[in-house]
Amino acid sequence: MNINPVQLFDVESSTFTYILVADDNESAVIIDPVERHWERDLAHLERLDLKLAYVLETHAHADHVTSAGKLRELTGAQAAVPSGCGIAPAEVQLNDGDVIRFGPHDQIEVLHTPGHTAGSVSYVWRGNVFTGDTLLIDGCGRTDFQSGSSAALFDSVVGKLFALPDATRMWPGHDYKGQSVSTIGWERRHNARLTNRSKEDFGVLMAALNLPKPKLIDMAVPANQNLGLPHGA
Amino acid sequence: MNINPVQLFDVESSTFTYILVADDNESAVIIDPVERHWERDLAHLERLDLKLAYVLETHAHADHVTSAGKLRELTGAQAAVPSGCGIAPAEVQLNDGDVIRFGPHDQIEVLHTPGHTAGSVSYVWRGNVFTGDTLLIDGCGRTDFQSGSSAALFDSVVGKLFALPDATRMWPGHDYKGQSVSTIGWERRHNARLTNRSKEDFGVLMAALNLPKPKLIDMAVPANQNLGLPHGA
Repeated sequence: MNINPVQLFDVESSTFTYILVADDNESAVIIDPVERHWERDLAHLERLDLKLAYVLETHAHADHVTSAGKLRELTGAQAAVPSGCGIAPAEVQLNDGDVIRFGPHDQIEVLHTPGHTAGSVSYVWRGNVFTGDTLLIDGCGRTDFQSGSSAALFDSVVGKLFALPDATRMWPGHDYKGQSVSTIGWERRHNARLTNRSKEDFGVLMAALNLPKPKLIDMAVPANQNLGLPHGA
Repeated sequence: MNINPVQLFDVESSTFTYILVADDNESAVIIDPVERHWERDLAHLERLDLKLAYVLETHAHADHVTSAGKLRELTGAQAAVPSGCGIAPAEVQLNDGDVIRFGPHDQIEVLHTPGHTAGSVSYVWRGNVFTGDTLLIDGCGRTDFQSGSSAALFDSVVGKLFALPDATRMWPGHDYKGQSVSTIGWERRHNARLTNRSKEDFGVLMAALNLPKPKLIDMAVPANQNLGLPHGA
């Protein structure tokens, strides 16, 4: 089986957005849409003649604002988000093991993969996994703010994501090096941060990164917890 | 059916490269790879555990150099190119109606779609068409240099590409506006240059564009006619 999503990119925040098309070629979901691209993304749905069933978020982002609320308003889709992310206005609150159905046969399984944030999830669909900022290609998301935990991220990746079949295609939430897709097997064998590293060593590595505070975090997280809509809207 | 390629992007020349994976998940072809990304593209093949059967070109590009020769050397793939593009070192010279087979069941049909260049082709695979610089999303390639012809491009698009089923997903060779994929049906109904325009009107429009000469053309075309390898190599 070889079903891929449509992968879209935001140059400013290096964020990937994904459109997953059901096997009826009519119904779709979108994962992690970016506010400034709502017109681009609606145009893609129109060109491909797709009806949006769900807008999914992998977590409450700190580096960009979502268009989930706007797309929901404009398409009639439902917003489905991880229950642990404080995104109150979404009608579907997802927990580990939940299944999202769209089209006549398609289903997406929810994996709770905390670590980048406590609520972060990954989505599994037809041999693909969308890992948000939990697992990146040859890397992983930071764990030093917003309820992050290197120990939780290690357990999520090693215990849950690396347990998926090796051929599972892995689509990250960001990439900063022009990379687009990997596989679980490759990441399990070669990931620069996680392969051949104990949980303790990984904790030391992550604590030493000393990353700057994301510029937009104080604005973006509250905005994203409101699906990107103005508060009070 | 909903099989998509992996779509890769070159920011400098806004060029799309595509990896098409056969249904055995082992064999692949790559379309229009870009010289400066040969390592990125090899890494994608390695991560996805794919064996490259063919490197395909849609035409001899004027705005970037191909990595076709390099990828052929490093992977053992064959280079397959349009017969009318003067790319002599390629072992497979393609003509209209030819079929390229890879994996146990996959086949790509060659459509000769002259206009951007006299030799340009499009490739049809599993409900997708890769149109190179013939048809772009809501636009088309220029026709004012390198054996281009607005009349030929009009006939290629209206007569051949728009004759494909409406739901065919259309993947262009470039995009300059953050767009990624369209469909033949949408382009037939809405394309800003071609919809509701006669061949004569289209010729007037294209003649009036007055585009600057591509900066790299004098270097890129001869390089691409040698698969991007140094001459004499």
